[in-house]
Amino acid sequence: MNVFVIGIGLIGGSLAKDIKMLYPQSKLFGIDSSEMHLKQAFSLNIIDEMASMDDLYKADWVIVAVPVDVAVSLVPEVLDKIPSHALVLEVGSTKAALCKAISKHKNRRNLLATHPIAGTEFSGPKAAHCGLFKGKTNIICEIDKTAFPIQEKALKLFAALEMHIRYMKPKAHDKHIAYVSHLSHISSFMLGKTVIEKEQNERDIFDLAGSGFESTVRLAKSSPAMWTPIFKQNKTNIIGCLEEYIRNLKQFKKLIENDKYDPIFKELESTNKIKEILNGIQFKQ
Amino acid sequence: MNVFVIGIGLIGGSLAKDIKMLYPQSKLFGIDSSEMHLKQAFSLNIIDEMASMDDLYKADWVIVAVPVDVAVSLVPEVLDKIPSHALVLEVGSTKAALCKAISKHKNRRNLLATHPIAGTEFSGPKAAHCGLFKGKTNIICEIDKTAFPIQEKALKLFAALEMHIRYMKPKAHDKHIAYVSHLSHISSFMLGKTVIEKEQNERDIFDLAGSGFESTVRLAKSSPAMWTPIFKQNKTNIIGCLEEYIRNLKQFKKLIENDKYDPIFKELESTNKIKEILNGIQFKQ
Repeated sequence: MNVFVIGIGLIGGSLAKDIKMLYPQSKLFGIDSSEMHLKQAFSLNIIDEMASMDDLYKADWVIVAVPVDVAVSLVPEVLDKIPSHALVLEVGSTKAALCKAISKHKNRRNLLATHPIAGTEFSGPKAAHCGLFKGKTNIICEIDKTAFPIQEKALKLFAALEMHIRYMKPKAHDKHIAYVSHLSHISSFMLGKTVIEKEQNERDIFDLAGSGFESTVRLAKSSPAMWTPIFKQNKTNIIGCLEEYIRNLKQFKKLIENDKYDPIFKELESTNKIKEILNGIQFKQ
Repeated sequence: MNVFVIGIGLIGGSLAKDIKMLYPQSKLFGIDSSEMHLKQAFSLNIIDEMASMDDLYKADWVIVAVPVDVAVSLVPEVLDKIPSHALVLEVGSTKAALCKAISKHKNRRNLLATHPIAGTEFSGPKAAHCGLFKGKTNIICEIDKTAFPIQEKALKLFAALEMHIRYMKPKAHDKHIAYVSHLSHISSFMLGKTVIEKEQNERDIFDLAGSGFESTVRLAKSSPAMWTPIFKQNKTNIIGCLEEYIRNLKQFKKLIENDKYDPIFKELESTNKIKEILNGIQFKQ
């Protein structure tokens, strides 16, 4: 089985590693716009062969794990070039623009649009590792637009990866994920920015930082090349949740300014229920 | 050696456990406004005896680990009651109000004002554990106002706990810690609040949450009884850094609204340098 991975970063590379372990007979081909990443993936044994888009005619599976703006133009090209039996998996963090871009493609039924909720703040082939997807949620969009045999192959892979499947419409996906992923990234980036700016005038601030600070700014290490296109594609939803977040911060600031400490206590107490919510979810890095 | 711990929560309880291990001959006395916590600490063997403020006459060491508003009135009372050789350690998250409250006390020189940058989102005696302070930073304020023999005992304890010492003025402490701790807590609480509010109208949002979300909202599990008084005591500094954080968020939102993706990329890229900063710091939970 010939498996092509386009974009050998954290997600593409980790999928390649898992597939190689689960399907030892498979041959892994890598395609990447960065020659350095491609060579790294080869020397790290993540892929067996460096390939190009013109080799896709021999693909059985194609995994597209590129920034979401690249995916919109690249996936139609992939669909143009694959043989009729091939499975194409797109795994980006937004789904509406991608699904729209391929809605009329003659080979639409070869593609399954997914979003595995897995990742770390690290990127590139060196960050790839086996087991990244185990126990994680995988959101599948527009399953009905994918051919049955293709669905079947993909679901078998996800079951082997031990992922939980959730089915959603692309627009609902993009709206919900803005709250539980995109907003977290912006809050983290801006927190990092605020403290870096302060540090320029007041030395040694970071020397006082503890694990709480580290936890809240961890996502500020994330790749700008991956995240700028996500913010662009999910603009409307992100503006919406940013407005709510800023409104809540301003209201909290006002409570402090007006010495309203009882309402602050109640606010913190009612937000504490995030404990029970998070306890119900299994998080693994 | 009689060691009194007032407030047997995460910090007080963990200190008690470490002291018991480091000084096996010491006898641990617990004082807590919550009878339940006191009994828990006793049954968990964190303390050897449940005590009251009237027992402080026999104290060699007193550790005060109570909410910062309680500390301001409680520490003078402790200083009233201790014998003249006793060491009193106050370990709260703000320092200016405490140092001011005791500045004229006749036994001021028995007290060392510190802030160990250690903690988790958990609280109460059950959260206490050995080794919490190992490798962590401990901020000491106004060391010159503490008597030499008292300084010496405390520094010996901190060395045994393997803590890094930083000396700061109380006001500088409160200003800097607002950025690297208090702001992180507010950003996390408000992020949790924003998503909980959304969840009320749109079901199953949390089902899509990954480890990134978990990381940014972890601090929203923190104790309201501990944090409300911190926000109150450090009001001015917190309002200042909240304003900067909100300004940065608004500016970022504006960049998205105006489709300024090149500046967004640059913004994320320059904030990425938090990687190197955090790499330079050792974080342990």
